[in-house]
Amino acid sequence: MNPDTCARRREKLRAAVRRRGLDALLVSAAPNRYYLSGFELHDPQFNESAGRLVVCADGRDWLATDARYTDAAARIWDEDRIFIYKGDGVADLARLLRSCGLRVGFEADSVSHGFVRALRRAAPGLGLEAADGLVEELRVVKDSEEIAALQASFRLNHALLDRARDFLLPGRSEQEISWDIERYFRENGASELAFANIVATGPNAALPHAVPGTDRLGENGLVLLDIGCRVQDYCSDQTRTLWVGDAPTEEFQRALDLVQKAQKAAIAVLRPGLPMRDAYAAARRVFEDAGVEKRFTHGLGHGVGLETHEAPSLNPRRADLLRAGMVVTVEPGLYYPQWGGVRWEHTALITEDGATLF
Amino acid sequence: MNPDTCARRREKLRAAVRRRGLDALLVSAAPNRYYLSGFELHDPQFNESAGRLVVCADGRDWLATDARYTDAAARIWDEDRIFIYKGDGVADLARLLRSCGLRVGFEADSVSHGFVRALRRAAPGLGLEAADGLVEELRVVKDSEEIAALQASFRLNHALLDRARDFLLPGRSEQEISWDIERYFRENGASELAFANIVATGPNAALPHAVPGTDRLGENGLVLLDIGCRVQDYCSDQTRTLWVGDAPTEEFQRALDLVQKAQKAAIAVLRPGLPMRDAYAAARRVFEDAGVEKRFTHGLGHGVGLETHEAPSLNPRRADLLRAGMVVTVEPGLYYPQWGGVRWEHTALITEDGATLF
Repeated sequence: MNPDTCARRREKLRAAVRRRGLDALLVSAAPNRYYLSGFELHDPQFNESAGRLVVCADGRDWLATDARYTDAAARIWDEDRIFIYKGDGVADLARLLRSCGLRVGFEADSVSHGFVRALRRAAPGLGLEAADGLVEELRVVKDSEEIAALQASFRLNHALLDRARDFLLPGRSEQEISWDIERYFRENGASELAFANIVATGPNAALPHAVPGTDRLGENGLVLLDIGCRVQDYCSDQTRTLWVGDAPTEEFQRALDLVQKAQKAAIAVLRPGLPMRDAYAAARRVFEDAGVEKRFTHGLGHGVGLETHEAPSLNPRRADLLRAGMVVTVEPGLYYPQWGGVRWEHTALITEDGATLF
Repeated sequence: MNPDTCARRREKLRAAVRRRGLDALLVSAAPNRYYLSGFELHDPQFNESAGRLVVCADGRDWLATDARYTDAAARIWDEDRIFIYKGDGVADLARLLRSCGLRVGFEADSVSHGFVRALRRAAPGLGLEAADGLVEELRVVKDSEEIAALQASFRLNHALLDRARDFLLPGRSEQEISWDIERYFRENGASELAFANIVATGPNAALPHAVPGTDRLGENGLVLLDIGCRVQDYCSDQTRTLWVGDAPTEEFQRALDLVQKAQKAAIAVLRPGLPMRDAYAAARRVFEDAGVEKRFTHGLGHGVGLETHEAPSLNPRRADLLRAGMVVTVEPGLYYPQWGGVRWEHTALITEDGATLF
C-alpha cells in the first residue's frame, strides 16, 4: 500500500469528518484501517484487534496499537503519532480520544457492544457517536492503485479457470479439487484465498452454501466452481459451472444458456447512473421470459475489493445509482435441487460510459 | 461434532441461563455457536454472521440463520426449531426473541454495537441485557471429545516439528519455509492453519509479531517457528527456536537453556488450584535468578481449543485458579533486538494431580 495514497485517502476522510461536525473518527474495521494506513489487513482473531486509527479534524492521525505491533507500526507511521496502549486498550484509548476533541465518531457496525460500553465508562462526558460508512463511502469507488491490484488478482483467477479442466478429473473429490485450486493460487502469487472455495458436483451445485466434501466427480456430470484469490491485497471472485464429460444433459445446457444470456443482458446495461435494482431486473427479465425466475434465488452481485463482499449490492431493493469506479460481480444463477444448478460470474468495473470486465 | 455432545453442552448452558434469571441467551460468537451446535465454525466475513442460536430456559433451542444455510441447518437441527430470517435478520430475530420471554441475554463482546442498537429498536420493551462468558465458562474445561481432537491436532504439529530440519534449508526464505509448512499441514489432515505462521530468522525472532518475509536462512543462524494447524476443528500451537548450522553462538545457547529451564519450572507447578499468576511467576523466577527478566516481555501462556487464543490467561495479573481439563500453552521467551530471540512452547492439559503435555 503506497503511503501517499493512504495519506490522500485520509485527507478525503478528514473532509467528511469535518462535514459531519466530528472532531475525530475512531476507525476500527480492519479493511478500513488498512485502506487508510496500510497497517494490518487482518485482525488476529474476531475478538482481537490489531489496532485502530484516529483521524482528527485538526489534521493529526494517530495509529493506536499494542506493544506486539510497535515495530510494524514504526515502519509505516510517524513515530510521534503512534500510540501504544495496554491490554484491550480501552482505558488508554479513552485518554487519546479526549485529547482529540469532544465529538468522536465510531463505527458502530464494526466494534462490539462491550467495547463501546467500556469506552463510555472510561471517558464520561466524551461525546461518542455512531458514524458508520464514512470510509466505506470512499472505498466503494476504486482508485487506479486498487484497479491495478484487482486486475492482478483477476488475472490469476482467469489463469486458473483457463486450465480448470486440468483440475477436474473424474474420480477426484470436491475436497481434493478444492485443495488443488488453493495450492495453484498460493504457488502463483496469491497471499490467501479470498473466501472458502466452492467446488460442488451434481445436486450439490443447488446449494448456495456448498462446502467441498467427499463426493467425487463422475465421468459425466456438472461441477460448479466459485473461487477467489487475494493478490496485492485485493480479492477476486469468479464462478463457472462446467460439464465434465462429453454428454451434457439438455436441462444443464438450457440452464447454462439462460444464465449466460441473463448475465450478458445485465452487463449490457451497466453504466454510471443506473439504479442498482435495474441491473438485477435486466437479468431477471431473461429468466421471466423463460418462465424460470423462481429458480433465481439471490441478488445479482456485490462489490469486490479489500473484502470479497462489500458495497454496493445489486439487489431488487436498492434504488441508489452505479458510479464510475465501482466494481461489481454479475452472477445470475438457476438452481434445481433434483439435479444441481448453474451460476456464472464475471466482475465488472463501471467506466465513464459503461462497464468493462476484469 | 457429535450431536449428543452438543445437546449435553446446551443443557449445561441452560442451567446457567436459568441461574442468571434469563429467559433465553442469544449466542452469536462463532466458536460458541459451533461448540453448542456443530453449525458453522466460521462466519463468512467479520461483518457477516452465518447464524445465531437462541437457548431458552424453557428447553427450546432455536437455530436462526439465513436462507443460504437452510440445507446445512437441516442436516444437524430439528427442522421445527430452525428459524430462517431475511436480510441481516434483526427484525425477524426481534420477533423470535420476544417469543422466548422477557429477559434475553446477549454476548456484548461478540456482537456489534449497531446490531444491539437495531435489535433494541426492533423489539421495544424486550429486556435485552449483556450476558458474556456463559459459554466461555463451559469451553474453558475441555471434555474428552475435545481432548481427543486436540491430541490429533498436536500430533500433526509434532510430526511437522520432528522433521523441521527438512524444511529449514539454507537459502530458503521465511515465506518459502512458511508455505512449505502450511502445505505439509494441509496435505496431512489439517483443514487450515490455526493462525498465521511465524517463521523468523535472526533479529526478526525478536519481534513478537514477526511476519514471514523475504529474508533467507543462512548457513549458520537461528530460526524461530511459531506454528499451528486445525485438525478435527481444534487448534494446536507450538513454538521452537532452532539453530541451523553447526556453530550456535554462546548467547543463543545461553538464552535457549534459560528458556527451557523456565518452561520446565512452570510446567512442574501446573496443577488444579494453582493461581494463574503463580505459573507465570515460576518461569519468571528462573529469568530473575539469571538477571534477564526484562527480556521476558509477554505473558506465559493462554488457553487453546476452538480458538488459538482463548481463556484462561497465564499472566501476572490473574489470581483465578487452574482447573482440571484446562488446556494452556507454556511459552516463555527472551528477546534481544540485536541478534534475535528464543521462545519455546509446549501445551499442557491440566489433570487431576498435575499436568500432561500434548
